[in-house]
Amino acid sequence: MYSQRFYTLTASCPDRVGIIARVAGFIAEHHGWILESSYHSDDGGGDADGSRYFMRLEVKADSLPFHLAEFRERFRPIAEELEMDWKISDSAVKKRVVIFVSKQEHCLYDLLARWQSKELDIEIPCVISNHDTFKGFVEWHGIPFHHVPVNPDNKAAAYAEMRRLFEEVRGDTLVLARYMQIIPPDICADYPGRIINIHHSFLPSFVGAKPYHQAYQRGVKLIGATCHYVTSALDQGPIIEQDVIRIDHSDSVDDMVRYGKDIEKAVLARGLRYHLEDRVLVHGNKTVVFR
Amino acid sequence: MYSQRFYTLTASCPDRVGIIARVAGFIAEHHGWILESSYHSDDGGGDADGSRYFMRLEVKADSLPFHLAEFRERFRPIAEELEMDWKISDSAVKKRVVIFVSKQEHCLYDLLARWQSKELDIEIPCVISNHDTFKGFVEWHGIPFHHVPVNPDNKAAAYAEMRRLFEEVRGDTLVLARYMQIIPPDICADYPGRIINIHHSFLPSFVGAKPYHQAYQRGVKLIGATCHYVTSALDQGPIIEQDVIRIDHSDSVDDMVRYGKDIEKAVLARGLRYHLEDRVLVHGNKTVVFR
Amino acid sequence: MYSQRFYTLTASCPDRVGIIARVAGFIAEHHGWILESSYHSDDGGGDADGSRYFMRLEVKADSLPFHLAEFRERFRPIAEELEMDWKISDSAVKKRVVIFVSKQEHCLYDLLARWQSKELDIEIPCVISNHDTFKGFVEWHGIPFHHVPVNPDNKAAAYAEMRRLFEEVRGDTLVLARYMQIIPPDICADYPGRIINIHHSFLPSFVGAKPYHQAYQRGVKLIGATCHYVTSALDQGPIIEQDVIRIDHSDSVDDMVRYGKDIEKAVLARGLRYHLEDRVLVHGNKTVVFR
Amino acid sequence: MYSQRFYTLTASCPDRVGIIARVAGFIAEHHGWILESSYHSDDGGGDADGSRYFMRLEVKADSLPFHLAEFRERFRPIAEELEMDWKISDSAVKKRVVIFVSKQEHCLYDLLARWQSKELDIEIPCVISNHDTFKGFVEWHGIPFHHVPVNPDNKAAAYAEMRRLFEEVRGDTLVLARYMQIIPPDICADYPGRIINIHHSFLPSFVGAKPYHQAYQRGVKLIGATCHYVTSALDQGPIIEQDVIRIDHSDSVDDMVRYGKDIEKAVLARGLRYHLEDRVLVHGNKTVVFR
Repeated sequence: MYSQRFYTLTASCPDRVGIIARVAGFIAEHHGWILESSYHSDDGGGDADGSRYFMRLEVKADSLPFHLAEFRERFRPIAEELEMDWKISDSAVKKRVVIFVSKQEHCLYDLLARWQSKELDIEIPCVISNHDTFKGFVEWHGIPFHHVPVNPDNKAAAYAEMRRLFEEVRGDTLVLARYMQIIPPDICADYPGRIINIHHSFLPSFVGAKPYHQAYQRGVKLIGATCHYVTSALDQGPIIEQDVIRIDHSDSVDDMVRYGKDIEKAVLARGLRYHLEDRVLVHGNKTVVFR
Repeated sequence: MYSQRFYTLTASCPDRVGIIARVAGFIAEHHGWILESSYHSDDGGGDADGSRYFMRLEVKADSLPFHLAEFRERFRPIAEELEMDWKISDSAVKKRVVIFVSKQEHCLYDLLARWQSKELDIEIPCVISNHDTFKGFVEWHGIPFHHVPVNPDNKAAAYAEMRRLFEEVRGDTLVLARYMQIIPPDICADYPGRIINIHHSFLPSFVGAKPYHQAYQRGVKLIGATCHYVTSALDQGPIIEQDVIRIDHSDSVDDMVRYGKDIEKAVLARGLRYHLEDRVLVHGNKTVVFR
Repeated sequence: MYSQRFYTLTASCPDRVGIIARVAGFIAEHHGWILESSYHSDDGGGDADGSRYFMRLEVKADSLPFHLAEFRERFRPIAEELEMDWKISDSAVKKRVVIFVSKQEHCLYDLLARWQSKELDIEIPCVISNHDTFKGFVEWHGIPFHHVPVNPDNKAAAYAEMRRLFEEVRGDTLVLARYMQIIPPDICADYPGRIINIHHSFLPSFVGAKPYHQAYQRGVKLIGATCHYVTSALDQGPIIEQDVIRIDHSDSVDDMVRYGKDIEKAVLARGLRYHLEDRVLVHGNKTVVFR
Repeated sequence: MYSQRFYTLTASCPDRVGIIARVAGFIAEHHGWILESSYHSDDGGGDADGSRYFMRLEVKADSLPFHLAEFRERFRPIAEELEMDWKISDSAVKKRVVIFVSKQEHCLYDLLARWQSKELDIEIPCVISNHDTFKGFVEWHGIPFHHVPVNPDNKAAAYAEMRRLFEEVRGDTLVLARYMQIIPPDICADYPGRIINIHHSFLPSFVGAKPYHQAYQRGVKLIGATCHYVTSALDQGPIIEQDVIRIDHSDSVDDMVRYGKDIEKAVLARGLRYHLEDRVLVHGNKTVVFR
């Protein structure tokens, strides 16, 4: 509904006196109705030179006398004065999310369930997989499915094709829904803060392959999952969301895999939602998440 | 340290355009440095006539050119214009917390441990109990202990004495740290939002006496604890904080009591901290908690 | 694989000396290899006349010199001597689970994802719904779908038809996967311990309709879900599994519904698995769950 | 009370047919009443040659016609036949727990609260510290306090003294209640499975010093604590219990330290209780915990 349409402004800048007053003042001056607003000052644990300021505001679209383009133009001088990194998005424009999947079903089913019920109000322009396992399931939902096999000999060509497909559908975000291949560094570098992975451990524990086997060997009493932005450093990117579940000595690796699935899909869904609602601001290798 | 001293402004008012701009503008105008700020608009689930706006700001004391009295005087016109309920507190003035206890030790030990390490940076002007069990322990910490027995015949006199003691030490907050008597309605009415209880169930389940027995009979798989403001309606006051812990069929009532203690003390400590840091704003029978 | 096939013996009886010795002795005598065994003595909190003993054993099928029919025959005298309620099941015989669903997708997608990956190694002979929303989705999976509308005028006929369908496919278990109608008392009575519901609150809080609205009104800080056996007393049946998730003042009823879905499907999946693996023994209105 | 006195038998042995029958048969033959029993077969994830069997039984002391010495003598042939590692303890004999502490109060207060209320029904023959911070507090409880300073020059002598004190009071278990020094390898080696540490991270993440700083730098969304047996490999010993608590971007290292304390004391208390009740069986570098 139009009456619910809103703009989401996110920004970060060096901390100083008067930031909120400046931003909220601009909005109030144009009679903008702030639905929700969050602010955070981060001093980097005291190690940095100064603190950095983060903010996120939702403003009712129809409370403003202008549209997004004019908002951007009018706000720019303030943003420049405050040395802001900023962006503003429109709730009426659906984000375009491309899903990469391999042979495990749980995250894919979970995302499509949320999509079909509009709990996740996004476009899924296509699903890409190195296997054809879910071709029928995805296409039944009316979503194009691309099978792009990846093997040691065709890696460069395969990832070039995936990149072409992502660009062709004008994807905003790429979700690795238990996609079991490592994304090449150049793709990681070209889409910073736009590729989201779900790793099946509570990072930084158990980086890399077979984390449940690692967890089994170490004898931990909880296992977890981590949703993070992908960078060229494997499993080292900024963490968006994590959670854990209790296990005990009677649980085999297979039991852990089964329990883990429930955590993986819940953590991925929460992390992705935060990202899509522009609630995640990256700060170095960490995130500010305005829930 | 003076450099860390800050004022905490909390307020609620009818929602309208420009509230943040007005408040943050006032602070910026006087070069006030906002350390932390939180805002919330509550529409009562859509049932109410309009929404109500809640806010909490921490401002560095030494960034302002005036002290608290002048802040209050200068801010008053804005508060009146916005029809605010508001208050401002000074981090340099320690809150005065009176503890009521009976014969269970866990919340008392826990609170005194936090107090002695200054994790809870408060004054405890006295502890009051209907038993003398913890007289030595409390006095060893240099805190006065008052034994005020309560029985069916002396209730009015006993509570009059407790009220006198609370007033005498100029108590700000009264904590029922597993105090096993019901506070009379007149005291509840005279100290709204100032008496904090820890109830040993996940309210609204298992109101009243012996909640662990009730939980055992019902066969629940998790038990909990609830920290809430005391009102004259037993266990019905605004909830500040809750948590749960997993149990199973092998746990007896005694086991639940034991597990429950750990939840009770953690939930009480978190709820009390939120209250003491002015993070809790009461709204009808609910709370806004700016963590 | 045959080598992994096992029998699961569950039993309860009055507690006395020598039960384990008798049962484990019988199995050892026939060279049976016990994979897993659990025992529990329940004294009803001391209120009952005596305690009752519960047990569950998994025995490797190919370690025994006989099959299930002969096991039953040979074990019967021991069971009679110990006054046991008991049963034994064969892991090679898949349970037949009929799913009832209405218009909410999350539990249905979740169960079918687990079924298609064989995480839930069951037969789903059909799905029954009072709406036709998921007809295509269910049938795409190769599972028959029956649309049985329920309205005030046809209730008796509708439930007679559902009962007929359940009997026709020889259903073992009936799962109400957010089926939004009340099951008639006669069906509850005829299938004790075989109908599993997921209720969208942390019972006993918020029985009946619109529990998230009730939770919102009360201002709780955690919301939950409960998987339980259905009895004729609404939301009062034996609890199998529960869990909760944290919310705060900023969450609307819609947010709670969304968070709640994640808890509902996880709790239903865990509870259903315990049931299907014969890990749940009903004791009065409570359950023993041997995880 | 005598009527509640029980013996706890714990054992592990190579897995084979008939173990439970043999052990439970022995107890039944002497009319022993089994209060609680747990069994676990561990195949090491399939990597080992064969599986190992673990068990724990509580038997009512007065149901048996003999005392512990005779139990041991009569049971020995069975244990030898089954190649068991085993022990049996008497609930009437209190365990003797020596606490090591430094300058942080939370675990010490928590343990003494549980001890004074008899929730932990143990002897605390002394507390040893490298600081004298808690001398008065400990002595007020009637417990001897030994101040044994540790510095680079006196390490050998200091640890010799601590070992002497532990031996002198015939300590069963040594608890490092946030004792901030590393225990020398020879002491670790001489008391396997008898020294319990609480580490302030969710191991294996953040081994070693300043784990909350490490967690802050990595930007994790949950922090944890781990209770484990001490071995000569720092923070690598068998894990007994772990738990986590949620944090977010607004939490400083100091906030993490504060939240962490609550997890540390709860995890230490649970882990210690499991140990004291002979619920923990070490298996290589892992534990079986029969809760």
